[in-house]
Amino acid sequence: MGKKAILVLGAGRSSSALISYLINNASEQNWHVWVGDYVEAAARERINGSSFGTAIKFDLSDSVAARKAVKAADLVISLLPANFHPLVAKLCLEAKKHLFTASYVSDEMQALHEEAKNNDLLFLNESGLDPGVDHMSAMKIIDEVHDKGGVLTSFESFAGGLIAPETDPENPWRYKFTWNPRNVVMAGQGTAKFIQEGHHKFISYQRLFKRTTNVNVPGFGDFQGYANRDSLKYINTYGLQGIKTMIRGTLRNDGFCDAWNVLVQLGCTDDTYQMEHVDKMTHRDFINSFLQYDEVEMVEGKLCTRLGLDVNGPEMTRLRWSGFFDAEPVGLDKGTPAQILEHILNKKWKLEPQDKDMIVMWHRFLYTLGKEKREVLSSLVAIGDDAVHTAMAKGVGLPLAITAKLFLQGKIHLRGVCIPIDKSIYVPVLEELEQLGMHLQETERVIV
Amino acid sequence: MGKKAILVLGAGRSSSALISYLINNASEQNWHVWVGDYVEAAARERINGSSFGTAIKFDLSDSVAARKAVKAADLVISLLPANFHPLVAKLCLEAKKHLFTASYVSDEMQALHEEAKNNDLLFLNESGLDPGVDHMSAMKIIDEVHDKGGVLTSFESFAGGLIAPETDPENPWRYKFTWNPRNVVMAGQGTAKFIQEGHHKFISYQRLFKRTTNVNVPGFGDFQGYANRDSLKYINTYGLQGIKTMIRGTLRNDGFCDAWNVLVQLGCTDDTYQMEHVDKMTHRDFINSFLQYDEVEMVEGKLCTRLGLDVNGPEMTRLRWSGFFDAEPVGLDKGTPAQILEHILNKKWKLEPQDKDMIVMWHRFLYTLGKEKREVLSSLVAIGDDAVHTAMAKGVGLPLAITAKLFLQGKIHLRGVCIPIDKSIYVPVLEELEQLGMHLQETERVIV
Repeated sequence: MGKKAILVLGAGRSSSALISYLINNASEQNWHVWVGDYVEAAARERINGSSFGTAIKFDLSDSVAARKAVKAADLVISLLPANFHPLVAKLCLEAKKHLFTASYVSDEMQALHEEAKNNDLLFLNESGLDPGVDHMSAMKIIDEVHDKGGVLTSFESFAGGLIAPETDPENPWRYKFTWNPRNVVMAGQGTAKFIQEGHHKFISYQRLFKRTTNVNVPGFGDFQGYANRDSLKYINTYGLQGIKTMIRGTLRNDGFCDAWNVLVQLGCTDDTYQMEHVDKMTHRDFINSFLQYDEVEMVEGKLCTRLGLDVNGPEMTRLRWSGFFDAEPVGLDKGTPAQILEHILNKKWKLEPQDKDMIVMWHRFLYTLGKEKREVLSSLVAIGDDAVHTAMAKGVGLPLAITAKLFLQGKIHLRGVCIPIDKSIYVPVLEELEQLGMHLQETERVIV
Repeated sequence: MGKKAILVLGAGRSSSALISYLINNASEQNWHVWVGDYVEAAARERINGSSFGTAIKFDLSDSVAARKAVKAADLVISLLPANFHPLVAKLCLEAKKHLFTASYVSDEMQALHEEAKNNDLLFLNESGLDPGVDHMSAMKIIDEVHDKGGVLTSFESFAGGLIAPETDPENPWRYKFTWNPRNVVMAGQGTAKFIQEGHHKFISYQRLFKRTTNVNVPGFGDFQGYANRDSLKYINTYGLQGIKTMIRGTLRNDGFCDAWNVLVQLGCTDDTYQMEHVDKMTHRDFINSFLQYDEVEMVEGKLCTRLGLDVNGPEMTRLRWSGFFDAEPVGLDKGTPAQILEHILNKKWKLEPQDKDMIVMWHRFLYTLGKEKREVLSSLVAIGDDAVHTAMAKGVGLPLAITAKLFLQGKIHLRGVCIPIDKSIYVPVLEELEQLGMHLQETERVIV
């Protein structure tokens, strides 16, 4: 058998664990790993001198070179921003190559299902952490329950990228930007949709961070979950037609959502207009822009009065720690509220080299088996090594890498546009993740 | 001099007063009034058999007929929805005809300024009530203050279309749909921008109906004003560069905004997604969709607990009166939250034939004159005759009609894309409105 060529597109933050795994397994698996990035030096850094890897400049707008790179591969793994995936997928179809991503299946991607299938190609998406491991760990339990004849009545699932308990102990948010800061600032805009006890429920953005769910993760304490946009679409995917409660959401440390809600209420996350005089604006001015003018009352007082906060309470403590009341210049020339907010937060929330991130995933299932009502709790907590080898990068990269290995070993027979909800993927992937230290903790109890 | 032909486009709700005025003055002014509507019968009804008017079918998609109708006119007055105005304006440019509208100047309209001017044409917009009379009554005071050497420091302006005190005395909202219901439901989405004591201020939609201004109109009691989208753009238009406070907004009866805020917070005004099972939905189900599931607590209880309302308080009284807690079917097959909300509200807020509407406009100016600080209050209240001859239709139609008369008499020499802020328009229009019963009440006092 000849050497298999894997082409990884994108050498950014989330690629470290993926590329390390592929390079470390290249000898045994008879692979060569090509890493393409717009910045060739970034690709070179990931390969770190290994003879099993080659860095190339990859630029989708240079279609001749892009075509050539894809053509030389057996499997393409794309970590590019999700909006590039339809373009990458078209190159893969043209060259008849398989494609793996960690991104949500877009409508454009879904539209390629038949064509991929007819060409005997697998376009596997949502194969990172969230989406990815969440699907796998959920389907494991769903299949087990179905196999023993149980009927699932409720599925709640929350996940989040946080910081490890030992990192920044004085940071009251217990949060830093371990992922795309802009996505964090914009999170939750739109309306959350889910189903609760058979009723369709909707949460507006203005209520989202008030209407949280308490989640306790054994050994790690209390968290707050807020609902994600559309929890309904996975009912069919997971084969849960008729389930009474289905909600997926994002996890934050206890108290985060209450403080974040203050910023949401003020309008600090608005990305629809440019603010005035940003070049002369301080953090304090920024907050004051969203508060009524008052001849005597200070910013803090106005905020507490208008939003019903205690000046020494937990929300104000977090906002004060972030420097929102400081006379420090924002440091931008222009910006929308959301851009300015991100910039201010990043001053304290930027991941430092020695910082360790932490990913937390939590599922709660209820099911009936005969006359019994049972609960299954499943959780996964992983802590990063530092700001490069983050838990997030491992969580995204390792499932992709392991799935790629299984696939190149001929152990996955799915074709078309898929997500990793098949036993042939999730059983071996979860097993190997366990060996790599990403431990899934499961408990089951009879409720009634 | 030959007979002048006026072409009125649109014979809908707002056209009654305009067309009556034109027809009643046609003999004396030597006019003939053409009324074009997509529904010719509607145009005919407005003309009501007068020999000074002719009804025609007017359909912008039939460009041959539309061109012909415009070509035969001396002046075109369009009451069509604002998005049609660029198309109408192009026909007017082609045929070299003047155009009047009551709509805001869009970017497309503004772009025609030079071309209209070069063709010696007047494209006069914002010449109804709001925008229209608000500009005129404000500019009257602004010019007076400037003429005597005063310096304006603050301008607050609020207007609203409400119901007369004698109409629906049991209706706790003191409100019905006297204008486009969809616009009422969607009002305020986006961010309000204004300037207060020299500081740019922004109010997010989630805070808009909480952050209201109290307005007392002598003889009519207390109202609540909420800020409109962009108050800043009129600073230049009105020649108020350097003013410290400038805010324009919408007026509602006292307590309206607090109750409306409950609907906003729940997400009932969201127009971005289709709800589920609308065909089987009751009013109560609609509200419940936005509230957490609870095994025992009722919709009313959940709402009061979550939003901090008193079950017998003024917000709940209004919501209850509108039937939001009734098990009555909504009566739609599908819809967004905003569409369903409009449909439910319309059951109680639809204007009945005998109902009288009321328009209220209120300005407050502060200015300095030498060492004195002075305040000018200006208000206008007009009450309709019934559901056809509404104050709203008079407020929109009469300023347009009077301006048209002045223009055809050769008394207005402006050209290009304009709004009615010139003395040559506002002085005679406000005078004649006064004679027609639309009385502007002005008071001035020295504060310091």
